Amino acid sequence: MPVQLNTEYLNSFISYEDYEKIKPSVSLAHDFLHKKTGLGSEFTGWVTLPTDCDREEFFRIQETASKISPKTDLFIVIGIGGSYLGARAVIELIKSRNYNDLPKATPNIYFAGNSISATDLNDLLKICEGKDISINVVSKSGTTLEPALAFRVFKRFLEEKYGQEEARKRIFCTTDRQNGKLKQLADEEGYETFVIPEDIGGRYSVLTAVGLLPIAVAGINVDELLLGAKLAQEDLACADLNQNDCYRYAAIRNILYGSKAKSIEILASYEPNFAMMSEWLKQLFGESEGKDNKGIFPASAIFSTDLHSMGQYIQSGTRNIFETIVYFEKPRNDILIEATDGDADGLDFLSGKTIAFVNKSAFLGTLKAHADGGVPNMVLKMPEITPFEVGYLIYFFEKACAISSYILGVNPFDQPGVEAYKKNMVTLLRQ
Amino acid sequence: MPVQLNTEYLNSFISYEDYEKIKPSVSLAHDFLHKKTGLGSEFTGWVTLPTDCDREEFFRIQETASKISPKTDLFIVIGIGGSYLGARAVIELIKSRNYNDLPKATPNIYFAGNSISATDLNDLLKICEGKDISINVVSKSGTTLEPALAFRVFKRFLEEKYGQEEARKRIFCTTDRQNGKLKQLADEEGYETFVIPEDIGGRYSVLTAVGLLPIAVAGINVDELLLGAKLAQEDLACADLNQNDCYRYAAIRNILYGSKAKSIEILASYEPNFAMMSEWLKQLFGESEGKDNKGIFPASAIFSTDLHSMGQYIQSGTRNIFETIVYFEKPRNDILIEATDGDADGLDFLSGKTIAFVNKSAFLGTLKAHADGGVPNMVLKMPEITPFEVGYLIYFFEKACAISSYILGVNPFDQPGVEAYKKNMVTLLRQ
Repeated sequence: MPVQLNTEYLNSFISYEDYEKIKPSVSLAHDFLHKKTGLGSEFTGWVTLPTDCDREEFFRIQETASKISPKTDLFIVIGIGGSYLGARAVIELIKSRNYNDLPKATPNIYFAGNSISATDLNDLLKICEGKDISINVVSKSGTTLEPALAFRVFKRFLEEKYGQEEARKRIFCTTDRQNGKLKQLADEEGYETFVIPEDIGGRYSVLTAVGLLPIAVAGINVDELLLGAKLAQEDLACADLNQNDCYRYAAIRNILYGSKAKSIEILASYEPNFAMMSEWLKQLFGESEGKDNKGIFPASAIFSTDLHSMGQYIQSGTRNIFETIVYFEKPRNDILIEATDGDADGLDFLSGKTIAFVNKSAFLGTLKAHADGGVPNMVLKMPEITPFEVGYLIYFFEKACAISSYILGVNPFDQPGVEAYKKNMVTLLRQ
Repeated sequence: MPVQLNTEYLNSFISYEDYEKIKPSVSLAHDFLHKKTGLGSEFTGWVTLPTDCDREEFFRIQETASKISPKTDLFIVIGIGGSYLGARAVIELIKSRNYNDLPKATPNIYFAGNSISATDLNDLLKICEGKDISINVVSKSGTTLEPALAFRVFKRFLEEKYGQEEARKRIFCTTDRQNGKLKQLADEEGYETFVIPEDIGGRYSVLTAVGLLPIAVAGINVDELLLGAKLAQEDLACADLNQNDCYRYAAIRNILYGSKAKSIEILASYEPNFAMMSEWLKQLFGESEGKDNKGIFPASAIFSTDLHSMGQYIQSGTRNIFETIVYFEKPRNDILIEATDGDADGLDFLSGKTIAFVNKSAFLGTLKAHADGGVPNMVLKMPEITPFEVGYLIYFFEKACAISSYILGVNPFDQPGVEAYKKNMVTLLRQ
């Protein structure tokens, strides 16, 4: 299986009895999800998405991406939360966090409409000057403030640059199948549209058109991505805790939170390209579990980078944390360390070894150091970073999150708390 | 004063008695720092750096930056932890998180040697192809693994591209005044060197050559940066808790942690350009306070971006968090919202308002929503993002961190826990 859970560094923290005690909750959570009897079951379309997805729309996404690419220098994805995090995470993980700066045949991609900063929006407009632009607005309603404001600005930018006819051919909307102001506008203007399925919430939507169109524009093989998710759908359908790493991961999180007072999970990786994936995970878990005054606080780190910033805290700070490491065995290309003339830095003892070997040693050394320091560690080991593996990983985490939330006793698919600030804001805006 | 602490949304969480009770600890912390009688007092050179800094070296930094700029497309800063976070944070906050992509007269800047990812290093090498490169190695010893490995790669890259003579003129070392392998190599090769003062630790070093050379290369006025810090040095020297916002902030953090069981601080801003500043802050606070099984866990968020990911958790999750918001009153340039033909998104009620007004409404609405939801909030309000203000803010946080650590009862200036993983790693590497 492309994702394997290693719990070797957990042994001193969790007992056989802990596993036995949580088993009934895991079974119940499995039934909730698969029999659609749990809270929020109207939003579980993602469970069978890899096998059920709309093939016609899927091909249209790929076709559209290949039409966008040759006429586009910059592809602007306008969306917030689940409407941008998944796409950005997958592109940066598979391609590079420096995707835009690398030589390539596909357009640069920027994400807009995910803040209300005039400084940031103005910078992006400067970057767009003199470039050929296409845009993808991702919004179920079309009225979410941040993307709506950015879309106003970019729609005007395109219409002034290309005229209304050509602008229409450069605007792509991912929105509700039939309702909402964005769908209405798209129909009036004749924009090409893609569907946000009604039974899949924002944070579970990366394998729908929401994520797939930008991912395809970046030149990533979306077939492989979905095939990976499909394998995960099969692999992870088993109700038996002992045979399902996804359920074991979900169960352990709750054991650590519930009976070991570990209230913070640090999601970490030894690949800088994983940073946005952690942001996607923070939404997935934070928004699913953070309710009813409960929930593990999701944090993130990149190692060894942050061993030189958060490392001290993790090693010896307040003992309320645990770590989940996503570790990839193989880099895209490795680098051989060669002997130098004079051994000025004293590292010639590494000559003949590779950078990946050093990274792995840092990983193994850290696991032991942190476990010795009182931090439970789980490892999700993966062979390498390919679309197939990443598709698998996405499904793994989505399912782990749903199961984990049901074990915790909350609805994995709602987010009532997000409305509180919006209500206050709108009151202020209308004054 | 450029930074003002607003505690309006704390009132229901903290009482007059809480303040009274902590006052003696604050006085003690003040004396520890200013009389150099506390733990780690040999590393308090940063306290008077703004008034004491080496003017000659300071001018040489500016001069060197202006010599680097015209012959350099890409300036590579090689360092990890405190040897890169401060520079990157200041450049992204003052210029842009998209600094590299914006049209400008100064070199692009990349940060290397802060991970052990072969994938990431290879990508950067691809970006360097065909470009004129200069590099700045920042390392006290020269033997820290991550920057040493990256320096090996880039030294070779430069020597192959330019030959040894010219390569020497493109390598700049920021290192110990006299000791260490990097200093030795620099002397042998004739690299220009800058000093990491012996009485200033990595995480407090951004206003030394460590941060100032890359910041100057980015075209930022380092005079102004230091003048801001100098004003902070004067403003924040007062021992009276009621008259010193920096001390009030430090005291409140400890009240929330110690007697209110708030173990996570979310550092947030409404400017996406602040994201790396939060990373710098996470090292500053995490590494200073996270020891002896104590310390507030530092986390970060960008709003309104993350109100659509972590917002649900902050509003209604486990009630062990508090927030510190750094809010800038004025964007670099504002954007006017204009009426549209048809009001397709229903936002025409905002026409005539600006994006900054909307951002401020989100800010105010969120403060109230989170406080109502049980999350104590502090606001550090600043007029705008200029080098002067940012210099002030850096000093504010450095001093707040030292005082806060002393109140907590730990040494603000050591990081013994960072060695644990290194020891294990080296054992593995030498096998």
